[in-house]
Amino acid sequence: MDINAVNALSYEDFLEVFGNVIEKCPIIPAAVWTHRPFSGLEDIEAHISNFINSLPESGKEGILRCHPDLAGRELHSGALTRDSQEEQRAAGFTHLQPEEVSRMRSLNSEYKARFGFPFVICARLNTKRDIMRELLKRLGNDRETERTRAIGEVKKICALRLSNLVLHDPPNSEKTRVA
Amino acid sequence: MDINAVNALSYEDFLEVFGNVIEKCPIIPAAVWTHRPFSGLEDIEAHISNFINSLPESGKEGILRCHPDLAGRELHSGALTRDSQEEQRAAGFTHLQPEEVSRMRSLNSEYKARFGFPFVICARLNTKRDIMRELLKRLGNDRETERTRAIGEVKKICALRLSNLVLHDPPNSEKTRVA
Repeated sequence: MDINAVNALSYEDFLEVFGNVIEKCPIIPAAVWTHRPFSGLEDIEAHISNFINSLPESGKEGILRCHPDLAGRELHSGALTRDSQEEQRAAGFTHLQPEEVSRMRSLNSEYKARFGFPFVICARLNTKRDIMRELLKRLGNDRETERTRAIGEVKKICALRLSNLVLHDPPNSEKTRVA
Repeated sequence: MDINAVNALSYEDFLEVFGNVIEKCPIIPAAVWTHRPFSGLEDIEAHISNFINSLPESGKEGILRCHPDLAGRELHSGALTRDSQEEQRAAGFTHLQPEEVSRMRSLNSEYKARFGFPFVICARLNTKRDIMRELLKRLGNDRETERTRAIGEVKKICALRLSNLVLHDPPNSEKTRVA
């Protein structure tokens, strides 16, 4: 879908396509639709980033709390969004050894008890080994540093989800959505 | 569930209970969880209201765009949230005559073309006759007036959803959730 096609979407169709670029936060793409027409993918991304930056700190934490645990129970119960499921699979979390699962769950619990939101990292840009190392390292941050770091990861996840949806086609070439 | 029980909830359990008090916007209760402990139902409601007021105008429109059409296709396709389904049923929208359905759809389309968001009204506080009259009347508003009016309705819907969830019990009396 090229940017001209995106700019022609009703808010309902826009949400159908972009509703989950920020995990379980359709309000964000729904807000950004106000700013169309967009000049391109980077423009949509910039509006999303500005919107997130405009939120009070509680709102940024709210975004994080809408994310699932990595290697959490939802991964196996089928309760993840399709995006999350594919991202966690890509990082190798669907094939953990039992001791890796219990290590991740224990670190996730420690992290959530410390910060009051789940550990968020762009799984597509990291291996499961990177992720476990980062989780341990980030546990040492203070809450403000960690909130900022985690929101940076949310934006990376968003950029990758967006780039899967808006292809860099020349105008008028029709491609089907790659989700 | 009394307020002491609410204050003891993890963010995950809080979202399980309160995640849809603003339609399809779990980020809002997720943000408000930061402000616990709450003194009571009105305190939660006030934090939600303040959070909504803190949003840029695009964010308020984003909230509205997360709402379904009244008497829209989703009502019959089963795609509504349980909350919306019950509210629309209570207002009589599950038993419209074919000519009422087509009248509502035509007015909804006109409204969305004019404002770029769907018509939102607290269905539990109105009959279908009131709602159709209000829809016609509000079509005459300018966009800013109408956005403010619609966000007022979102807050009324939220107050009723909250009051269904947090019962005014004396502390320590256990009641099951009434959704």
